[in-house]
Amino acid sequence: MPLDSGATLGPITLAYESWGKLNAERSNAILICHALTGDQYAAGINPLTGRPGWWDRLIGPGKVFDTDRFYILCSNVLGSCIGSTGPASLNPKTGWAYGLDFPVITIRDMVRAQEALVVSLGIEKLACLAGGSMGGMQVLEWMATYPHRLESALVLATSDRHSAQNIALHEVGRQAIMADPDWRDGAYTRHSVIPRKGLAVARMTAHISYLSEEALTRKFGRELQDRDGVTFGFDADFQVESYLRYQGQSFVDRFDANSYLYITRAMDYLAIADRYGGRLADAFEAATHVRTCVLSFTSDWLYPTDDAKRIVRAMTAAGLPISFAELETDAGHDAFLLELPEMDRILKGFLDRLAKDLALDG
Amino acid sequence: MPLDSGATLGPITLAYESWGKLNAERSNAILICHALTGDQYAAGINPLTGRPGWWDRLIGPGKVFDTDRFYILCSNVLGSCIGSTGPASLNPKTGWAYGLDFPVITIRDMVRAQEALVVSLGIEKLACLAGGSMGGMQVLEWMATYPHRLESALVLATSDRHSAQNIALHEVGRQAIMADPDWRDGAYTRHSVIPRKGLAVARMTAHISYLSEEALTRKFGRELQDRDGVTFGFDADFQVESYLRYQGQSFVDRFDANSYLYITRAMDYLAIADRYGGRLADAFEAATHVRTCVLSFTSDWLYPTDDAKRIVRAMTAAGLPISFAELETDAGHDAFLLELPEMDRILKGFLDRLAKDLALDG
Repeated sequence: MPLDSGATLGPITLAYESWGKLNAERSNAILICHALTGDQYAAGINPLTGRPGWWDRLIGPGKVFDTDRFYILCSNVLGSCIGSTGPASLNPKTGWAYGLDFPVITIRDMVRAQEALVVSLGIEKLACLAGGSMGGMQVLEWMATYPHRLESALVLATSDRHSAQNIALHEVGRQAIMADPDWRDGAYTRHSVIPRKGLAVARMTAHISYLSEEALTRKFGRELQDRDGVTFGFDADFQVESYLRYQGQSFVDRFDANSYLYITRAMDYLAIADRYGGRLADAFEAATHVRTCVLSFTSDWLYPTDDAKRIVRAMTAAGLPISFAELETDAGHDAFLLELPEMDRILKGFLDRLAKDLALDG
Repeated sequence: MPLDSGATLGPITLAYESWGKLNAERSNAILICHALTGDQYAAGINPLTGRPGWWDRLIGPGKVFDTDRFYILCSNVLGSCIGSTGPASLNPKTGWAYGLDFPVITIRDMVRAQEALVVSLGIEKLACLAGGSMGGMQVLEWMATYPHRLESALVLATSDRHSAQNIALHEVGRQAIMADPDWRDGAYTRHSVIPRKGLAVARMTAHISYLSEEALTRKFGRELQDRDGVTFGFDADFQVESYLRYQGQSFVDRFDANSYLYITRAMDYLAIADRYGGRLADAFEAATHVRTCVLSFTSDWLYPTDDAKRIVRAMTAAGLPISFAELETDAGHDAFLLELPEMDRILKGFLDRLAKDLALDG
């Protein structure tokens, strides 16, 4: 497969899961795109963690993404480490993990691989494509690159370009990983080590950006962790410290450090309008048939509502049938993963109408 | 000196600088309190960096802090590493640097040491006490603990308590330092090493929090660093990455890693109202004579304007003569260190009036 960098990569494996049944017309497929550290286990029980999938709340019989009507797909992105080809995969040329020999990829490269998967399943056109955060970035790149394969699109908590602050936060995480001597220039598997501490620090930094100040105050405030007073030391006196340390440690057990480098880099490189002379609307000019809903969240400071408004302006200028809602919440960026009745109502209304128009109701 | 932790520490050295002349009545002294990684070189040329002091713009003959009228003092805080006693100082018991044998201190401990310095200089009462960020925290603790030594106070870009998000950001920095194998449980000087990479990552994280998204976009946007296109690699393609790396590297040359741990811990422990049954106003009840000006900055997300408003409400309830201004700026937390004409006018008005009332004009 050719990549945006000019390199080629292959063979490529994409791990995916599906729920519901593809109908005879192959017209009821929805592809769901996951976020940075997400995976293909969007619904049901994640076999790796034993816990419900990251959008299990929304996917299933009678749910928002109704598996009685739709055939739902979710694939692990290119560059990740939950079954799809990425820097932790074996490099056929060396017999070792790729490490830094893996080519730097883009969001559009992830989308290219997804499109090949969808076509290989005999699906000419997706009823809907949905995603939040990096998932939303993939949706936007699909709309720019493969608009003829889309009936509709759901774009949540995302941006069409990584800002200086977005890049800065990712760069800190990458530097934390690369500062860990166990990173070994990316060849840690050859040395049977893992850059645990660096990857944990990277995750801790990122995690702060996924929550809002209000959410952190509501969840933790200055509450102490199993103690009556501060200890005048460097243990995790505060619950928020203990929580962050846990987030960092548990992440190390489920995610590959090099995948984190590559996927954050792909996100940093995102600036869709740059390919269109700075005119974002031009990216969507072949997508005028794609009914689109954009959702943003008031307390999301990673991809603030202004980013969503820029996308909405461009899509409106391009003539897409588009709806937009800014949802009030103090939960921060992660709101799209949490229970928010207003979000559910909007998504359900959108998908119910879609099912009706596509005559998917039985 | 007794500490909040119950430990004692001594002997203590405080390094300080001064500008202007103390008058015969010793009534014209202003103490300026520096921020986390600041130093006593507020004005003139910093002999360590060869560059102007951090508030040189504001301090000097005819300037806002007018050295023709005022005697200006600035001391390096207890726990720091620019001449004052801190974890890098020699522990008289061992002959090595204290390292983790240094007791954990609080903002009030820093203030205790400052008060001893002021009294040792024969100054019974400060004409004014001023500080931003952690400097503002010191001002608040002075007002609570030594109100009789203050005529007036300037409180900039600060909070009376560290929020969950504030603690979280500091904890990431501390974990980055402690993750560096060269940290050696704090005893790195014995091993002739420095946890350079960990300290650099800590600084990079903190630096993002000192700026606003708008400021980062204005300064850097997605501009590339000396190249025409992205390199599809992990070098600093973007100017913001290069800038952050430079900030991290240069910090390592001027600051002690353990001091960073101790001072961030002191800030995290700040919750002044907790000593007063949760009633912040009670902290200021002996300060009703202290004319006070509080300034906050609209784009400061580290210590948002809501923190300043909480302080102002408490001081108002306590009956202090207080003025408050929220200054419009996109510069983020660091705005108090930058050129902002409206800030200068307010500070000048406040200090001119003070000089007049104290008959310091000649």
